[in-house]
Amino acid sequence: MEVEIKTPCADPDGLRQRIQEKGGVFQGRYHQSDVYYSHPCRDFALTDEALRIRSQPGLVQMHYKGPKIDSSTKTREELGTFLPDQEAMASILERLGFRPVMTVHKERELHLMGDIEICLDKVEGLQTYVELENSGEDLDAARQRLLDLMAELGLQGSERRSYLELLLEGGHA
Amino acid sequence: MEVEIKTPCADPDGLRQRIQEKGGVFQGRYHQSDVYYSHPCRDFALTDEALRIRSQPGLVQMHYKGPKIDSSTKTREELGTFLPDQEAMASILERLGFRPVMTVHKERELHLMGDIEICLDKVEGLQTYVELENSGEDLDAARQRLLDLMAELGLQGSERRSYLELLLEGGHA
Repeated sequence: MEVEIKTPCADPDGLRQRIQEKGGVFQGRYHQSDVYYSHPCRDFALTDEALRIRSQPGLVQMHYKGPKIDSSTKTREELGTFLPDQEAMASILERLGFRPVMTVHKERELHLMGDIEICLDKVEGLQTYVELENSGEDLDAARQRLLDLMAELGLQGSERRSYLELLLEGGHA
Repeated sequence: MEVEIKTPCADPDGLRQRIQEKGGVFQGRYHQSDVYYSHPCRDFALTDEALRIRSQPGLVQMHYKGPKIDSSTKTREELGTFLPDQEAMASILERLGFRPVMTVHKERELHLMGDIEICLDKVEGLQTYVELENSGEDLDAARQRLLDLMAELGLQGSERRSYLELLLEGGHA
């Protein structure tokens, strides 16, 4: 299970500074391309699932995301695996009736604070968002850690739609 | 595209000897477990496709096989990729509605003769089969090479059903 909270970030520089002051450690900045697929006989928009192939320098992964299980954050099952051959897997998916719906491109800047990942995402076609992510067996505790850190960093709000959904809905200029 | 001919092998020892006499080289013997999946909304038995996860010591792969495109051999598209995390991929497939239908266990003994693979397969629940496999852009030429080698090795017949199909049909005692 991954627990995630996402919210727009109006002041990336200010946020970077607060992350650093609170002991967060900058991990790196890299481009991610996420190809999202439709299911051959299931409407992922209705079932609130997602399947994607993510590529970034030196790394290709496939992820399945299950339906969100709470009403405030983006807590959901996430399964992932590395793909040694992106092209072969894309071909297999297409033969099985999965279709690439959209590719989401973003610059992701990753900071770590303890076991919490903080991502500053500059998504093509959208404004900048910040995502806080945590995992663990005790979901309530994981969620509370994120909400506490949100407050410490002066962040508010919770955007539960994925970047894919936001882009499909016409984007946030 | 892979071109493949399969036929029952009544005399494995005799066949091994002929393979060696004709210059074939023994490559190894290993156990393969193939988990075959059903599609969430397509009947692979009708569409003549297959999806499986194959595991053998030190190696896990996923394969998609397309419909056979001729009436005498098992010529068909085959796509394959290595899986670094079998369990994660199996979980993703199940979340997407694919169901494990059957696991085929066999001892495979591989010989190489030029670019032709000769597999002696002792499949659990079936008799021993020999498979000759080749690939290439010129399918007719690839097929002819297999037929010529069949004749040289004293092999006859062509079983176009997969091991999965044979097992589902009740097996060949």
